[in-house]
Amino acid sequence: MSPQVTFQPDGKRSTLAPATTILEACISSGIDVTSVCGGSGSCGKCKVIIRNMDCLNAPAEAEMKLLSKKELELGYRLACVTRIRGNVTVLIPDSSRKGRQRLQTEGIKTRIKLKPLVTKVSIKIPKPSLEDQGADAERLQSALKIQYNLDNLEIAYDSLKKLPIVLREGDWTIDVTLWDGRKIIDVGPHTTANGVYGLAVDIGTTKMAGYLMELKTGKLLSTVSLMNPQTPFGNDVISRIACIMKRPEALRELEDLLVTGVNQILNEACEKAAVSSNHVYETTIVGNTAMHHLLLGINPKFVTLSPYVPVIQNSVDIEASKLGIAAHSAGNVHLLPIVAGFVGADCIADILASEVYRSLKPSFMIDVGTNTEIVVGSREGLVACSCASGPAFEGAHIKYGMRAATGAIEKIWIDPNTLEPNYLVIDEDRPRGICGSAIVDVVAEMLKAGVMDTSGKILSGIDNPRVRQGPNGQEFVIAYQQETSIGEDIVVTQLDVREVQKAKAAIYTGASIAMKRAGVARENLEKVFIAGAFGTYVDPASAKAIGMYPDVSFEKIIQIGNAAGTGARMALLSKKARKTAWKIRNMVKYVELAADPDFREEYISALFFPHADLDQFPETMGALKKDGLHIASRHETLLSKLKKLRK
Amino acid sequence: MSPQVTFQPDGKRSTLAPATTILEACISSGIDVTSVCGGSGSCGKCKVIIRNMDCLNAPAEAEMKLLSKKELELGYRLACVTRIRGNVTVLIPDSSRKGRQRLQTEGIKTRIKLKPLVTKVSIKIPKPSLEDQGADAERLQSALKIQYNLDNLEIAYDSLKKLPIVLREGDWTIDVTLWDGRKIIDVGPHTTANGVYGLAVDIGTTKMAGYLMELKTGKLLSTVSLMNPQTPFGNDVISRIACIMKRPEALRELEDLLVTGVNQILNEACEKAAVSSNHVYETTIVGNTAMHHLLLGINPKFVTLSPYVPVIQNSVDIEASKLGIAAHSAGNVHLLPIVAGFVGADCIADILASEVYRSLKPSFMIDVGTNTEIVVGSREGLVACSCASGPAFEGAHIKYGMRAATGAIEKIWIDPNTLEPNYLVIDEDRPRGICGSAIVDVVAEMLKAGVMDTSGKILSGIDNPRVRQGPNGQEFVIAYQQETSIGEDIVVTQLDVREVQKAKAAIYTGASIAMKRAGVARENLEKVFIAGAFGTYVDPASAKAIGMYPDVSFEKIIQIGNAAGTGARMALLSKKARKTAWKIRNMVKYVELAADPDFREEYISALFFPHADLDQFPETMGALKKDGLHIASRHETLLSKLKKLRK
Repeated sequence: MSPQVTFQPDGKRSTLAPATTILEACISSGIDVTSVCGGSGSCGKCKVIIRNMDCLNAPAEAEMKLLSKKELELGYRLACVTRIRGNVTVLIPDSSRKGRQRLQTEGIKTRIKLKPLVTKVSIKIPKPSLEDQGADAERLQSALKIQYNLDNLEIAYDSLKKLPIVLREGDWTIDVTLWDGRKIIDVGPHTTANGVYGLAVDIGTTKMAGYLMELKTGKLLSTVSLMNPQTPFGNDVISRIACIMKRPEALRELEDLLVTGVNQILNEACEKAAVSSNHVYETTIVGNTAMHHLLLGINPKFVTLSPYVPVIQNSVDIEASKLGIAAHSAGNVHLLPIVAGFVGADCIADILASEVYRSLKPSFMIDVGTNTEIVVGSREGLVACSCASGPAFEGAHIKYGMRAATGAIEKIWIDPNTLEPNYLVIDEDRPRGICGSAIVDVVAEMLKAGVMDTSGKILSGIDNPRVRQGPNGQEFVIAYQQETSIGEDIVVTQLDVREVQKAKAAIYTGASIAMKRAGVARENLEKVFIAGAFGTYVDPASAKAIGMYPDVSFEKIIQIGNAAGTGARMALLSKKARKTAWKIRNMVKYVELAADPDFREEYISALFFPHADLDQFPETMGALKKDGLHIASRHETLLSKLKKLRK
Repeated sequence: MSPQVTFQPDGKRSTLAPATTILEACISSGIDVTSVCGGSGSCGKCKVIIRNMDCLNAPAEAEMKLLSKKELELGYRLACVTRIRGNVTVLIPDSSRKGRQRLQTEGIKTRIKLKPLVTKVSIKIPKPSLEDQGADAERLQSALKIQYNLDNLEIAYDSLKKLPIVLREGDWTIDVTLWDGRKIIDVGPHTTANGVYGLAVDIGTTKMAGYLMELKTGKLLSTVSLMNPQTPFGNDVISRIACIMKRPEALRELEDLLVTGVNQILNEACEKAAVSSNHVYETTIVGNTAMHHLLLGINPKFVTLSPYVPVIQNSVDIEASKLGIAAHSAGNVHLLPIVAGFVGADCIADILASEVYRSLKPSFMIDVGTNTEIVVGSREGLVACSCASGPAFEGAHIKYGMRAATGAIEKIWIDPNTLEPNYLVIDEDRPRGICGSAIVDVVAEMLKAGVMDTSGKILSGIDNPRVRQGPNGQEFVIAYQQETSIGEDIVVTQLDVREVQKAKAAIYTGASIAMKRAGVARENLEKVFIAGAFGTYVDPASAKAIGMYPDVSFEKIIQIGNAAGTGARMALLSKKARKTAWKIRNMVKYVELAADPDFREEYISALFFPHADLDQFPETMGALKKDGLHIASRHETLLSKLKKLRK
C-alpha cells in the first residue's frame, strides 16, 4: 500500500511511492520548504517535524550532525534524507519555509516578482508651529511627496479621523500604509514589524480555500479551507440561483453566507498565524461567475438565462468594509476578472497559475468540478468553455457516493482475473462510501476487467459473486457489509455508471469542441494541466481510461492542484499578475457549448468508454487491449460508421 | 415706523423704507423673482401673493389688466407696482422664480455659469446575444463611451447591483446619473423628469441653513433653517470642544447631532419641494473648522491648542452613506476647503459669494458670529483672521439678552432729549428681551444721547428715571414691567455694556490688524461687506457708532446676508466655483491674532466707543458730535497721548 503523507499546517495530503523522501514529497505536492544544498543533507535548512516516527528510516548521519538532541527528541528530521515508509504527518515549521515564496503547485512552479499593491512606509513629518500652521493631512501629503515622491494621495476616511492623534502620539514620526501608491489606507505608530498582510481566497461551489500571506516577503503564513456555507441552498450553482428566482431575499442570504465564509477563513488564518485581521490590507478573490456575483450581492440569475450574460467582467476593487469583510476597513478587496457567465475568475486564475497563456505550443487545461472549465491554446490565443459536468465527481447522485472525507474509499483497484477489489480509505479502516476519485477508478477498472462494456453496460452472466443483479439493474460489489462501517454492501450500480458517463461525456465534449475551435489536435498538445482538488486526487490513468481528458501520454499530464488559489495568491503579491489577468481575460475566446452545432454528436460519441471513436484514444487503447475490452454492439455499429466516414 | 416684509417660502425678513415696491424689496433682500420688463408693469411675470392686502396700495391699472379676477381675489399682485405701507408677508410662487437661478444676496448679485458635477444622461444600450455576450457593466460603459465620449467610468457599488434589473426592466434604455463625468452614481428607468437635486448647507455654531436646488436649472426649491442641535453641549465652539476633551465619547455624540441636523434639513427641504431625498445626489457643506471636523467625526481639539492646526484644509469629497447623510447613498458630500483652525469653509464661501477675491480695489468683509471672521484685500491677495467675539451678539451673557425670536426687541431708538426709547418687537406687542441687533442699537443710542461715555461707563447723575442705579451698577430702562411680557423691567446694565465692549473690541482689533497686515488703510477701502444673519439685522449706523467696523461711508457698506450659504450654493451648482474656492484657500494668508505683537494695544484702544483714536472714525464722529459725546477722562489721557505720538 502506498504511504500517505499529510502536510501541516497546509492540510494537504499526498499518496506517494514508498521510500520517497519528505523533500521530494514536498516538491511534488507543492509544499513550500527551504533547501539550500539541493537535498544533499548538508545545509540543515529543511527541518520538519514528524508525528509518527516509526514510519520513517532511522536518523541519518547528516541528521545526527545537524540536529540537536532536543530537536531529535521533538521529532525534528531533515526532509531531504528522511524517507517515508508509512502514513505520516509532516509539520513544516515557519522557519523552514522559503523566505521568498515560490508559488508551487503540484508539478509546476511559478516564480513571481513580488510587487504587492499594499506597502508601508515610515515617515517623519515636520511639526507645525505658529509660523507654519498647515493642516495635519497636508503636512503628511507634503512629506510623502518630498520623501517618497508620492503625489495626489487620497486619504481613507478612517485614516483621516485617526491622523491627528497618531501624529501627536508618535511625535510626528509614523507608519503609513499605502494602496497602489495612490491611497493612504492606514496610519499608525512607527514600528519595525512588517504588519502588512493579505488574504487570497478561492471560492468554489463546494469548497473555499484561503491563504494568508505576508505581502512584503510573499511568505505563506497559513492556509484554511472550509465547506462553502451556501451548500444548504443546493449543491450546484444552478440550484442556488433557482432559490433566488423563487425567493428574492435568498440573494441577500447567499451573499451573507459567502461573506461569513470569507470572514471565517480570515479569522482562522489570522489566528493560526497570530496576525491581527486589522493588518490584512488586501484580499484577492477568485471564484466562478455565480460566486463572484453572489459575494458582491449581485443577482446572478441572468447568467443562467440565454444569452448567459454576466453583470461585470472586469476586475472589481472595493473597500473591505463595503462587502462586510472583516479585514482592515479601508483594505481593498480585489476580485479577478471573469471570462463569461460560466467561466469565472477561478478559470482566469487557473490560466495565470498554469501559464498556459504564455506557452509556445498548444496546451490544454482542465479544472473539474460541478462545472468543469476547459482552456485550450497557447500564447497565440486561448479558447475556454464550461461543461455542466454535475456533482457526480463530488460523490453526489452516486448510490454510495460521498465527499472525500473520513471513511471514503478514495482509490480502487480491481484484479482483472479474480475481480477482487483493493481499496484505500481516508483516515479509517472501514469504508462508509466512495468519493469522486474512486468512482472514476471503479468505472475504469470495470472497463479494463471486462465487467463493463464500452457503452457503460455492466455485463450480466459473469461468473463472479461481485457482479450481481441489484434492485435497479446490474451492480458491482466493492465491499461486503462485514468490511464496511455502514452495515451494508458498498456497490457501484448501473445508474452510478450512467452518472459518471454523463459527466465525463459533458467534459470530453467540451474538451473536443474547445480543441476544434482552437484548431488544436490531440497529438499536438504539449501539456495537459489538471487543476483543482478532484484533478489532484483522481488517478490520471483511470481518468484517461474512461475518456475524460484528451488522450495524451502520461508525461504530458501535469497536476497543478488548486491553481485557482495559486492564481489568487499571485494576484495578491503582484500588480503585474493583475495586469496579466486582464490580458488573459481579453485573449480568451469563450465558446458557448450549447450553441455549438457539433454538440449533440460529440456528446453521443463521448458517452462511450473511452469514446465512440477509439482512434482518438490510441494511448489508452494500447493499455486497455492488454486486459481485454468489451466493445458494445451499438458501439460497433457506430465504430464502423465512423471508419467508413474516415475513408 | 418702517414696514417689515417677510418673504415666503424663503423665510427672509426685511425692514424697508415706506412705499418701497415689492420688487425693489425682493432685489434688496436677495429674493429671486422674475422681471422681464425691468419693473415697468408690462410683462406680468413678477406675480406674488400678499397675505395682508390692506398694507398695500390699491391694484394699479397694469395689475387690473395683467391679473385675472380670480388671481386678484386670491391676493395676487405684481411685485413691481405694489408698494408696501405696513408689515406684509409676500409669497413668491415657483412660477415667478427665475428659470436660471441668479444667486442674489442682499446688495450683491452673483451670476454663475451652471456646471453642476452631477448630470443625468439617457442611453440606449445594445442588447446582448449569444454572439455578443459582453457583461452588463461593460456594455453600459462602452455605450457611454460611444454616445457621450465618457471613458474610464467607475460604477458605484449600489448601481452595479441594480444594473442587471434596471437594464432589462427598461428594455436596455436607461438613465444614468454621473458624478464629475467619471463615476456612475445611479442607474434607473428612463424618464423625462430632471430628478437631479442638490443640497447646500451652512452649518453655523448656532444655526444651520439648507437650500435644496435643482441642479440642472439651478432653481432654488426650498430653504430650511434649524438651530444647531449641538447647542446643549455649549454655546460656542470652545465649550463644545472642551466637552470632548473631558469626555472623548462626546466626539461621536457631536458628530451624530450634526448628521441628524443635516438629515433634518434634507428631509424638510425635500418634503417642502416634494422631492425624494434619494434624488439628492450632492450636498455641499460649509461651516467653521470645528463644525467641518465634527461633521466628519474628526476630533477638533488640536484646533484649540497652539499652534491651532486643523486636521485637513483641502476640500473633502465623501460618499453620503459614509457620513450617514440620508441623501442618495452614492451621492457625494463636498466640504469646501478651510483656511485655518478658526477660519473655516464658511469664510471661504463668504469670500466666494462676496467676490472679494476678484475685487480690483481693497475690500473688507466681516461675518459676525460667536467667532467673527474678517477678510481684507483684493485680487492681489487676501488676509483673514478670526476674532473670539463671543456670543454677546447672539444675546448670551446679556441680562435680558435673547435670540432673535418671538418677543425679542430687535431695534431700539432713544430720543436724545427725553431719553424715551422706541422699539420694535419680533412677532409680538410686548417684549420678552433684547436680541443682538438691539443690543448694538441701545449701546450706540446711549453713546449718542450722552447716557454713556466713550469708555462705556453709564453715567450717574443724569436726571432721568430711565438711568438708574441697579443691583450691579448703573442701568438703562428700555421697557418698564407693564410694557413687557415677563413681569419685570427690561434694562441694559453696565455689565451688558462691558460684554458688548469686549465683543466689539475683539472684532475691531481683528479688523485693524488684518488691515495693517494687508497694507490697506481705512480710507482706501472700496467696499465693506457685512455677511451673516447678525450683519443683516444690525443697523449699520449703530454698528459704526460703537466702532465695530472700519469707519467708511454708508454707501460703501453692503449687507450680503448669509453669504456662506450663498457660497455653498455656488459650489453646488458650479465646478468652477469649487476650483475658485481652492484658489481662494491658497490666496488667503491667515493671521493668528493672538500671536500679533500689536494685539494688546489694539485691543485696549478698541475697547473705547467708537475707539481710543477718534481720528480713525471721522465719519462716525461727524454724526456723533451733533448729539454730543461724553469723552471719558481716561480716554482723554489716551487721546492726547495718541495725538502726541502722531506729531
